[in-house]
Amino acid sequence: MTGEGARTEGLLIRIAERRDVGAIVALFAADALGGHGDTTEAEAAGAYLAAFERISRSPNDTLYVAELNGEIVGTFQTTLIPGMPGRGGTSFQIEAVQTRQDMRGRGIGALMINHAVSKARAANARLVQLMSNETRERAHGFYERLGFAKSHVGFKMKLK
Amino acid sequence: MTGEGARTEGLLIRIAERRDVGAIVALFAADALGGHGDTTEAEAAGAYLAAFERISRSPNDTLYVAELNGEIVGTFQTTLIPGMPGRGGTSFQIEAVQTRQDMRGRGIGALMINHAVSKARAANARLVQLMSNETRERAHGFYERLGFAKSHVGFKMKLK
Repeated sequence: MTGEGARTEGLLIRIAERRDVGAIVALFAADALGGHGDTTEAEAAGAYLAAFERISRSPNDTLYVAELNGEIVGTFQTTLIPGMPGRGGTSFQIEAVQTRQDMRGRGIGALMINHAVSKARAANARLVQLMSNETRERAHGFYERLGFAKSHVGFKMKLK
Repeated sequence: MTGEGARTEGLLIRIAERRDVGAIVALFAADALGGHGDTTEAEAAGAYLAAFERISRSPNDTLYVAELNGEIVGTFQTTLIPGMPGRGGTSFQIEAVQTRQDMRGRGIGALMINHAVSKARAANARLVQLMSNETRERAHGFYERLGFAKSHVGFKMKLK
């Protein structure tokens, strides 16, 4: 792992539990760039809990949190995608990466991504893939430094 | 659906079956740009069949074929990804899109993508997403014409 140091000593990356949902939602609600309408308002709490249950039930999806001194400071999700290309290789996708805004620049993101990559290797995946909004230029350099190739274009179509 | 016409009359888009695996592999083996080492050689057949079984067992993944006059002329895969962002929205991902080389320019790709998008709507997905190699410039315009926004950068890290 890279980026590990005194500033992230004691960082624990673990599978998210139901009690973490509020803290995870707060990370997304604080991210204006995402523009996904995330909110910590009570009206949305049920939808987030339902989503947490869907992820937990899915055999291919895992939601993680990064915990430091008892606080949730980051989150990411991984999805195993079995596929035909690459002689029937499995892709390992990283989604919904967030580090708490006041905790950025401490290597937490790198620790989370490297944790995901180690899980991909353990799952015998052919490749790790992710998409990043084209406006997040700092993130792009970050992923390249971690060993990703900026080789694809990501397309999205919002349905609602 | 767009792109439908006399040239694709009778096109059937259906879930792939085990007997289609050889024809699907031939589509990937003919795609040099992918560079994924795909081959119709017998030595790889077992790996493809195993991958087909993994996809079939996955509750979130579906492998499709496009069939015309009894021949497999295209394929794509869809993956439902439950997630936390977007108030707990589900993403619907399209992977491994291929149209047989001699059948391109007939609207088969558009019919396949529109079929996938209709499945995404039926699954109440928040968005449809896909990645395309940055060298496939013609594909990029194709996806934009179908209503996708070229809003993200796609990163890949090959593990083997």
